[in-house]
Amino acid sequence: MKSDRFKKGWEKLKEVDGSAGEKVIESLKDIAPEFADLLIEFPFGDIYTREKLDLKSREIATIAALTVMGNASAQLKVHIHAGLNVGCTKEEIVEVIMQMAVYGGFPCALNGLFAAKEVFSNEN
Amino acid sequence: MKSDRFKKGWEKLKEVDGSAGEKVIESLKDIAPEFADLLIEFPFGDIYTREKLDLKSREIATIAALTVMGNASAQLKVHIHAGLNVGCTKEEIVEVIMQMAVYGGFPCALNGLFAAKEVFSNEN
Amino acid sequence: MKSDRFKKGWEKLKEVDGSAGEKVIESLKDIAPEFADLLIEFPFGDIYTREKLDLKSREIATIAALTVMGNASAQLKVHIHAGLNVGCTKEEIVEVIMQMAVYGGFPCALNGLFAAKEVFSNEN
Amino acid sequence: MKSDRFKKGWEKLKEVDGSAGEKVIESLKDIAPEFADLLIEFPFGDIYTREKLDLKSREIATIAALTVMGNASAQLKVHIHAGLNVGCTKEEIVEVIMQMAVYGGFPCALNGLFAAKEVFSNEN
Amino acid sequence: MKSDRFKKGWEKLKEVDGSAGEKVIESLKDIAPEFADLLIEFPFGDIYTREKLDLKSREIATIAALTVMGNASAQLKVHIHAGLNVGCTKEEIVEVIMQMAVYGGFPCALNGLFAAKEVFSNEN
Amino acid sequence: MKSDRFKKGWEKLKEVDGSAGEKVIESLKDIAPEFADLLIEFPFGDIYTREKLDLKSREIATIAALTVMGNASAQLKVHIHAGLNVGCTKEEIVEVIMQMAVYGGFPCALNGLFAAKEVFSNEN
Repeated sequence: MKSDRFKKGWEKLKEVDGSAGEKVIESLKDIAPEFADLLIEFPFGDIYTREKLDLKSREIATIAALTVMGNASAQLKVHIHAGLNVGCTKEEIVEVIMQMAVYGGFPCALNGLFAAKEVFSNEN
Repeated sequence: MKSDRFKKGWEKLKEVDGSAGEKVIESLKDIAPEFADLLIEFPFGDIYTREKLDLKSREIATIAALTVMGNASAQLKVHIHAGLNVGCTKEEIVEVIMQMAVYGGFPCALNGLFAAKEVFSNEN
Repeated sequence: MKSDRFKKGWEKLKEVDGSAGEKVIESLKDIAPEFADLLIEFPFGDIYTREKLDLKSREIATIAALTVMGNASAQLKVHIHAGLNVGCTKEEIVEVIMQMAVYGGFPCALNGLFAAKEVFSNEN
Repeated sequence: MKSDRFKKGWEKLKEVDGSAGEKVIESLKDIAPEFADLLIEFPFGDIYTREKLDLKSREIATIAALTVMGNASAQLKVHIHAGLNVGCTKEEIVEVIMQMAVYGGFPCALNGLFAAKEVFSNEN
Repeated sequence: MKSDRFKKGWEKLKEVDGSAGEKVIESLKDIAPEFADLLIEFPFGDIYTREKLDLKSREIATIAALTVMGNASAQLKVHIHAGLNVGCTKEEIVEVIMQMAVYGGFPCALNGLFAAKEVFSNEN
Repeated sequence: MKSDRFKKGWEKLKEVDGSAGEKVIESLKDIAPEFADLLIEFPFGDIYTREKLDLKSREIATIAALTVMGNASAQLKVHIHAGLNVGCTKEEIVEVIMQMAVYGGFPCALNGLFAAKEVFSNEN
C-alpha cells in the first residue's frame, strides 16, 4: 500500500516526466525498492507539489543546480527533458546552462550544453 | 575608458542590484581592479543581457546554483537580494532554496534559508 | 497536526540530539517553518529510523560525508555531538575525520578536526 | 626496497581488498609508479592500520564520503567491494548510500545505489 | 563579425591548443554557437592573454584545478595536452596531479593520473 | 622520535612557511597530535620534497586548487603566504586566482581575491 504522499508524488512526477519515473523505479527494484518510494514521496510528493513556485521555475532551478554540481549527468538529462515538458523552450534551457559558466565555471557549462544537445536530439 | 560591454553590464547590474555592483568594484580596487571590469563585462555585459531568458528566471537559476555549491555565502545573499529586486517574491525564493535539499542535500538548503532570513530581515 | 512520520522523526532526532532538533525548528520558524517539518520527517522519520543500520554507523557515515563536503560546518558540529550521544568515542570520531584526508584532502580533514575540537571542548 | 609503511599498508590493503590493490599498482606502473607506493603507504599504511576504529566502520565512512563526492565512481565501487570483504552486509551498504540523499542530495545517492548494484551483481 | 577579443582569444587558444579550439567550436555549433564565442573571448581573450603570468604556470594552475574538481574529465585532458604544448614536461604534469592528492584526495589524483596516461599515450 | 620523513617534511615546510607549520602543530596538539605528524610527513615529506617540480609551481597549483574548492579559506591564505615565500609575486598570485573564474566560477575567484587581499595587507 503506497502512502498518499507517494500517490501525490507519482502524479506530479508523471506531469513532469512520466517515463523517467517508471525507469527509476524499475532501476531500483532489485537494489533498493524502498528508495524508489522515498524518491517519489519526498522530492515529488513533498517538494514539487508545493504551490508557491511554478513547475517551470522549479525545473530552471534544478537544471541550474545539476549543471554546477557537474557530477550527475543522467539526472541533468532527465531534468532537461522535464524542463521541455513543463514549458521551458530549448532556448531558455540553453540560457540557464550558459549562465552557469559564471557560477560553476566553463567546464560545467560545456558539459551541461552537451547534455542538452543529447536530450534535444532525442526529442526529434 | 570602459568598453561597451562594461557599460551594458553596468546598466544590467544596476537593474539587478546597484549597490552590490558598487561594493564589489570598491572591494576589488586595491587587489584586482581589472577583475572588477571582467566581472561587470562577462557575467553582466555578456550573459545577463541576453534576451532569451527573463531576469527573474536568471536569478532563480543563480540562487539555486549558489545554494547547492554552498561555499559562496556572500554571493548567495547578493543574489537573494537581486531576486527580490527583479520580481521574485520571498516565498518563491524560499521555495527554490527548499527544493535544493533534493539536489545538494539538507545542509546546503538549511544554510541557504539562513542566508535568505538574513537578507529578508535587512529589507524591512 | 503533525504527521506520524514527524512524530517518529522527532523521537529519533531526540534520541540522536534533542537540543539540536529544537534549535533548528526554532531557527526556521520565521523563514520556512514547513521546512522544519520536512527536515524532521524525511531525514529522521524516513531514514534514521530504518532498522538495517545502527545509529552509531549512521553517525559515522554522516560525519564522514560532512567532513569531505567541507561546506556545512554547523551541521558537522551537530553530528559530531550526535555521534557522541549514540555511542561513538571521541577517538573514533577523530579517526573518521582523519581518514577523510585520504578522500577529501587534508584541508577538509583539518577543518573537521577543528570542528571536533570545538564540540569536544563544549562537552566538558 | 619498499618501506615498512608500504609493507604494513600492503598487508592492510590485502585484508581490505587484495585484487584492487594489485590492479591499481598495475594501472599506475607506466604513468606514476611512485604514486602507487604513496597510495599504499599513506592511506593503507598510515590510516587504515590505526587501531582506534574498526575496518567495518572505516569502510562505512569511505562509502559515505565517496557517495556524496559523486565524482569517483571507480573508487566507490572498490570500497563497496571492500565493505563486503570486511563484514558489512549488502543491506548496510545500501542503507549508508540511501542516507547520503540527506547530505549530498538524491542524485548522488541514486548513482551510489547503481554502483552498489553493479558491485553486488559481480559478487554472485 | 568577430570581436577583437575573439581574435585575440583565438590566437591564444591556437598557441595553447589549436585542435581543441576547433573541436569545441564545432561541438557547440548546433546547440549554442554563441557560447563558443564567449568561450574564446573570456577565458582565452581576456584571461590567458594577460601578461603577468606565463602560459606554463597558467596550465599548471588549470590542471590542478580540474584535477581537484574531478568532474570535468574531457577538459582536464585538453589542458594536459595544452600543458605539454606550452612547455610542461610529462613529469611536471604528473607531479602537479600527484600533489592534488593532498588537497582534493587520492581518488581525484588517481583519476587525474589516468587522464594523463590517456593523453600521453595519444602523443606518441 | 620523529621519522625521517617527518624531518624532511618539517625542513620543507619551514622553507615554504615556517610559522604556519608551527601553528598547525600547536592547533592539533590536544585533538589529534598524530595527524600533525601525518600532515608533515605526507604532504611535505613525501610530496613537496619531490624534485621534478619547483616549489613556485607547486604553490601555484595549490593556490589554484584551494581557490576552486572554495571551502578551505584558512588553508588558501597559508598557501598564498607560502607562494610569496617561494618566489611568486603578488601579481602572479592574483593572476592565478583570477584565472580560476574560468574553472570554478566567479564567486570562488572573488573569495580567493579577498583572501589574497587579507594576506597581502598582513605582509606590509
